[in-house]
Amino acid sequence: MHAYRTHTCAALRQTDVGETVRLSGWVHRKRDHGGLLFVDLRDHFGLTQIVTNIGSEAHSALESMRVESVVTVTGDVVARAAEAVNPNLATGAIEVRAVTVEVQSAAQELPMPVAGEAEYPEDIRLRYRFLDLRRERIHKNIMLRSGVIASIRKRMVDQGFTEFQTPILTASSPEGARDYLVPSRVHPGKFYALPQAPQMFKQLLMVAGFDRYFQIAPCFRDEDARADRSPGEFYQLDFEMSFVTQDDVFAAIEPVLHGVFEEFAAGRTVTPAPFPRIAYRDSMLRYGSDKPDLRNPIEIVDVTDHFHGSGFGLFARLVEGGSVVRAIPAPGAGAKSRKFFDDMNEWARGQGYSGLGYINIKDGVPAGPIAKNHGEEATAKLIEALGLGPDDGVFFAAGKPGDAAKLAGLARTRTGEELGLIEQGVFKFCWIVDFPMYEYDEESKKVDFSHNPFSMPQGGLEALATMDPLDILAYQYDIVCNGIELSSGAIRNHRPDIMYKAFEIAGYSQADVDTNFAGMINAFKCGAPPHGGSAPGIDRIVMILADEPNIREVVLFPMTQKAEDLMMGAPAPATPKQLRELSIRVVDGPKG
Amino acid sequence: MHAYRTHTCAALRQTDVGETVRLSGWVHRKRDHGGLLFVDLRDHFGLTQIVTNIGSEAHSALESMRVESVVTVTGDVVARAAEAVNPNLATGAIEVRAVTVEVQSAAQELPMPVAGEAEYPEDIRLRYRFLDLRRERIHKNIMLRSGVIASIRKRMVDQGFTEFQTPILTASSPEGARDYLVPSRVHPGKFYALPQAPQMFKQLLMVAGFDRYFQIAPCFRDEDARADRSPGEFYQLDFEMSFVTQDDVFAAIEPVLHGVFEEFAAGRTVTPAPFPRIAYRDSMLRYGSDKPDLRNPIEIVDVTDHFHGSGFGLFARLVEGGSVVRAIPAPGAGAKSRKFFDDMNEWARGQGYSGLGYINIKDGVPAGPIAKNHGEEATAKLIEALGLGPDDGVFFAAGKPGDAAKLAGLARTRTGEELGLIEQGVFKFCWIVDFPMYEYDEESKKVDFSHNPFSMPQGGLEALATMDPLDILAYQYDIVCNGIELSSGAIRNHRPDIMYKAFEIAGYSQADVDTNFAGMINAFKCGAPPHGGSAPGIDRIVMILADEPNIREVVLFPMTQKAEDLMMGAPAPATPKQLRELSIRVVDGPKG
Repeated sequence: MHAYRTHTCAALRQTDVGETVRLSGWVHRKRDHGGLLFVDLRDHFGLTQIVTNIGSEAHSALESMRVESVVTVTGDVVARAAEAVNPNLATGAIEVRAVTVEVQSAAQELPMPVAGEAEYPEDIRLRYRFLDLRRERIHKNIMLRSGVIASIRKRMVDQGFTEFQTPILTASSPEGARDYLVPSRVHPGKFYALPQAPQMFKQLLMVAGFDRYFQIAPCFRDEDARADRSPGEFYQLDFEMSFVTQDDVFAAIEPVLHGVFEEFAAGRTVTPAPFPRIAYRDSMLRYGSDKPDLRNPIEIVDVTDHFHGSGFGLFARLVEGGSVVRAIPAPGAGAKSRKFFDDMNEWARGQGYSGLGYINIKDGVPAGPIAKNHGEEATAKLIEALGLGPDDGVFFAAGKPGDAAKLAGLARTRTGEELGLIEQGVFKFCWIVDFPMYEYDEESKKVDFSHNPFSMPQGGLEALATMDPLDILAYQYDIVCNGIELSSGAIRNHRPDIMYKAFEIAGYSQADVDTNFAGMINAFKCGAPPHGGSAPGIDRIVMILADEPNIREVVLFPMTQKAEDLMMGAPAPATPKQLRELSIRVVDGPKG
Repeated sequence: MHAYRTHTCAALRQTDVGETVRLSGWVHRKRDHGGLLFVDLRDHFGLTQIVTNIGSEAHSALESMRVESVVTVTGDVVARAAEAVNPNLATGAIEVRAVTVEVQSAAQELPMPVAGEAEYPEDIRLRYRFLDLRRERIHKNIMLRSGVIASIRKRMVDQGFTEFQTPILTASSPEGARDYLVPSRVHPGKFYALPQAPQMFKQLLMVAGFDRYFQIAPCFRDEDARADRSPGEFYQLDFEMSFVTQDDVFAAIEPVLHGVFEEFAAGRTVTPAPFPRIAYRDSMLRYGSDKPDLRNPIEIVDVTDHFHGSGFGLFARLVEGGSVVRAIPAPGAGAKSRKFFDDMNEWARGQGYSGLGYINIKDGVPAGPIAKNHGEEATAKLIEALGLGPDDGVFFAAGKPGDAAKLAGLARTRTGEELGLIEQGVFKFCWIVDFPMYEYDEESKKVDFSHNPFSMPQGGLEALATMDPLDILAYQYDIVCNGIELSSGAIRNHRPDIMYKAFEIAGYSQADVDTNFAGMINAFKCGAPPHGGSAPGIDRIVMILADEPNIREVVLFPMTQKAEDLMMGAPAPATPKQLRELSIRVVDGPKG
């Protein structure tokens, strides 16, 4: 018989009754029922009930053990009495009558319990993460994470991608967030940087002729923590492909995302591929956001034209001055009290906007200040244009296009939530495409890149040479799920001539480009293929699938909000010898 | 038709003749044959020959292109004339007659060529790694590496392991090599360390109840470069399992290693599982090494007893004084000249030993100083005991057991190589087991740990309490392939009581243990399962399979021997702002 186990704690069934078995695991719970002691023995796989008779050697061994001790139990599988069968437990039809018990590890009193669902403060959970991780929910989340990553890897390979490891000790990148630096011992006064993303490397892989790259890539940003972002490190599904159009990128990655979400959907439904493509400008208009949550059925409508010369003077004057009016239908809101509408208006003011107008229709009769002043016929026309029913409501956001869109987007979300319209149990994907290449920067009073200067402009060199810059679109795209942006991506600009021209429009000289992006430009001059990719966030995907609002619940050993590893005691002072070797000195820090 | 390609450059066959196709790739080679221009178009997948007629538009486009430019060729697949068929090329039966050529990226003059096998200096290769990586051999090596890692992952999952990501920003570990440190911005004067290996984390994963962990783990050691070690980062197949004996670890990992080596053997043979187990002391005796190359058929024999009172006074006196004599048979060396034996002796002196004795048998007649003095009958007995044939030789290493074993081991390797005895085209695996727990340290005149203090002593607490420490063995093991150690591993000591006792024998108090290994000891007091594992080096596995002597040939973007990334320009000075934010100052470094 094996020294530790013949079966896992999830393996035994009715058909094993009569067998002599050996199990090892943690003492999960103990229940003393007079002459009998029941122990739930737990391992990674599940639970098995152990029972011992009072007075037996096994009984005294188990009785004296604290919960979470590790024991090896040898005994006989017996059927439970019919009334004792637990249909919720895989091993619920049997129990093991212990004959011998060997203690592998006696637990002391614990700083936090494992059994049960009680909440514990972050610092206790993270300091004793090895206990926290024994708890059912978090254990399951971490296994889900591993399952998701393994599934992604398999699906990427199925799509013809190859995984490569790019360097972790590398150079500081000129853009983006704050780098983590690593002092070099061999080169005093110089530093490596941990990669914020392997962007340069993946593009160089394409230049090196590898056709389809991916990596479950560790990335590092020295930024403050957020619920959806760990301080320190995070992982992304980094990928890049050569000789592709934007549609090829979508066609390659949609089966991966759809497949992974389907695999772990647990009854939830997933947008079938191809995912809807929504142009950035449409998305800003219809959803007031470039990260639309398509579970929300509400669509925003531009109703500016309805308010030219309207009896509702406020909107009429705004429209006159170049503002727009966006309508946010609120299906079924007619049944709501006036307070509901007033609260929404108050909320909008709280968000820094001047307010949210509304029309409230009850039994087909529109009410509220706008309906009153806009005029009966005009209001009827407006309601008809919006397709509103006899008990619907509608909110209005008015202002400069950008502001009105944003407010309308926030109001759409809030209205959907308040009215319970957000569809549950679904993963709704879409691509946001056709981002503008440039925007007018009000502060600097000049045209600047609106998103990523390294994306390929649609229409290439000719578009740059002939079109109004503000009309030029980029081959740039976001993938969004349930209102959460999983990633930006782009077809890259691989042509130095087009890059120089694109930067010239934003006011940068060829010398600027050559100086700041020398590595990439020089590589592109050695023969570069057209290429593109993206990098969906792994932690976010797992959070969505696990339905967890905090990234801490889906990461094995996260740091605290203050970027500390309480379990391992990091960060910590360095020794004087270490600092000397690295040719650095601490300024105003604590004593080493 | 797709914008860039209907086929890859490895796809077209005789059966495609007559099709109109589009290919994209790099201009690999150009050959001008009078009226025709031949271009080998290369992509990740292979080569296709393009042909254009002089005077055509396609011809002038291709003619003006430098090699390594990227082009898209649209044209017709035609069969090659019988004498022009290239059987060594997958697409060798056809060529593509170009109708149109679109330039995707015009290459400038290159710092190093891609076609051909010429050697280039390390600094050129690494500075233009994106060109170096286009070359056939290195491209193939990197793809092999990816294939090996994907295969390992699949096989580990098949063995019931789950992959987890452990932190990269973590705490300095008290033992081992030099850490890379990362200054904390949020905690001035404190530092993270990059993990030398996820040893603590994987053991804590076992304590957390995850049953079988693995990770293709990036590890970081600030050590100087060696041929088989990159400066900076390297990867290991880190794994750990709970509720296992040493045999369980072997049984889990042997199918993985055997399977991976078989998969990429390309005609070479692999030791079938189970791999031979060789006790450390046997290995030191028979092979003079704990990393025996079993492709070498020579086995060392202890012949000390033969030299008690021998006529060969030197050995007789050494044996009298407690030294040993080890024989290294040299099959077939009888045919060698006296110079061969003298050279071996000289070589041994060059290695710092006093010399290497020998007997040289020719037509059954033993010769040399030892044979002469040892006595005819005694020499015959010795030769018989060693099973030497009428034209064999034998070397002798005499000295203190440790020294004699080492010299014998070196002589065994050299003899095997000189005589051409090393078996080719094989991967010979073995486990070295039963390492001694302690050794006598001649310098400090005390018993100390001989390898890993955290391994479980065989016999547990009782062995520690009752046995001579120098006789206690550990559940510690190395996996060796062709004389290269892939990894150490162990069944860990998970019991605080046994750990305190083990350290006590080596002269450390319980307080020492509690202070230096607090994290691990405290975790073990919360219920720890018996567990063990290992961590074979990925880079070494790929080097062995690719038959490359330098790790640079199997790593995508390696640093130089001086730990520089010439391509990305790392390490580099930090900005004053960065240093200020990190509360550090450079001492005696170059100006920022």
